[in-house]
Amino acid sequence: MTLKVFADRMSQPSRAVILFCKLSKIDFEEVKIDLFKRQHLSPEFAEINPLQQVPAIVDGRFKLYESHAILIYLACAFPGVADHWYPADVSKRVKIHSVLDWHHLNLRYGAMRYVLHTTLGPALGRPLNPEAAAKAEKTLDSSLSKIESVWLKGSGKFLLGSYQPSVADLSLVCEIMQLEVLDEKDRARILSPYKKIQKWIEATKASTQPHFDDVHGILYRAKIKIQKQREISTLQSKM
Amino acid sequence: MTLKVFADRMSQPSRAVILFCKLSKIDFEEVKIDLFKRQHLSPEFAEINPLQQVPAIVDGRFKLYESHAILIYLACAFPGVADHWYPADVSKRVKIHSVLDWHHLNLRYGAMRYVLHTTLGPALGRPLNPEAAAKAEKTLDSSLSKIESVWLKGSGKFLLGSYQPSVADLSLVCEIMQLEVLDEKDRARILSPYKKIQKWIEATKASTQPHFDDVHGILYRAKIKIQKQREISTLQSKM
Repeated sequence: MTLKVFADRMSQPSRAVILFCKLSKIDFEEVKIDLFKRQHLSPEFAEINPLQQVPAIVDGRFKLYESHAILIYLACAFPGVADHWYPADVSKRVKIHSVLDWHHLNLRYGAMRYVLHTTLGPALGRPLNPEAAAKAEKTLDSSLSKIESVWLKGSGKFLLGSYQPSVADLSLVCEIMQLEVLDEKDRARILSPYKKIQKWIEATKASTQPHFDDVHGILYRAKIKIQKQREISTLQSKM
Repeated sequence: MTLKVFADRMSQPSRAVILFCKLSKIDFEEVKIDLFKRQHLSPEFAEINPLQQVPAIVDGRFKLYESHAILIYLACAFPGVADHWYPADVSKRVKIHSVLDWHHLNLRYGAMRYVLHTTLGPALGRPLNPEAAAKAEKTLDSSLSKIESVWLKGSGKFLLGSYQPSVADLSLVCEIMQLEVLDEKDRARILSPYKKIQKWIEATKASTQPHFDDVHGILYRAKIKIQKQREISTLQSKM
């Protein structure tokens, strides 16, 4: 039976898992769980993932959720995955865990909430919240600063000074890509101080094409749509 | 060279790491980094962990931070660690990752903030914040509910229905133990609806004694001290 990946490409951890499957030539069936249609809250999906979040996978009778755990499973359980994604060497491997663990309460927490409270909230039934957005921006900025000064230290282009990307690069870059849907001025203000991060994002994109753009297509299209809505709102407010 | 563990036993992830070393008979030197004295913010400690958090370890020339990554390193790099803590079987192992990943933005986020905003804040230079505490309690309660209904499902006494504890049990139980410092009424209100969780905490304690109580001694003493302070404040407010 083919591996099933339950995902919505508008979700950053979903994109990381789909991208990894494509890069590692893992045969899979993508099952869309539309977050905007609240399909993740359906009783059918609760049978797959009782936490009601995407991504989740089903491999035969084996079910798994949480994107980092899924990436590790895919790297370990499928043949032919290149070692650099999740090295067999314990010292290298646990350094990747260190980044992945740090991610949750730092970059993920900041970026996810900033995007939610400034942009995507209404589509998910939540009003925009400038106060919560301001708090989230602090966490986001502090996280980007740590990525620049701690995690991107070293001679390689990737996290932990590596010369090839790992699953941590996929997870964190997919998170930062979510900022694409922001107002361009906000996005530039947030990212422009961080030169190493900009190079790292480009290096990750370059090393994962054409799959990177394929998996992010939905986000690029959402960016254009949201930008148009912003322009219409601005025009209407001037009338 | 002996493994060095930089920790403050008042920190729940520090306790999980120290407890694991003791349980697995890993020879280590404990170096106290006093959070209340802000020693984690010193330039010397930034050389060990640039993220300025405990726990962190130094094993020869190898440095590592983030408690889950440390637990995995210890389980993999030291001989004689029992398999149940972090099983070699990939399917079992990634299920443990699934719990550990989920932990950060759920139980950890809720419990840490609830304790900070109701009790420990002033000792760390932050005022108490009832509004933030109320928000944190929602996350904490929702997390406990998921532990009860999802992670403790199955026939065993431990997470994922296991018959023996894993590193995930240590991490999550050490987090819940932090609630010891709360006002007893608050603690009872939060934990009493969750019968499976109460049994699981007792099972984890029982299977890790005498080390569990040794490592939590500082917390039990803090509980008594904070309770006395509360009684004095109540008396003073009545005078």
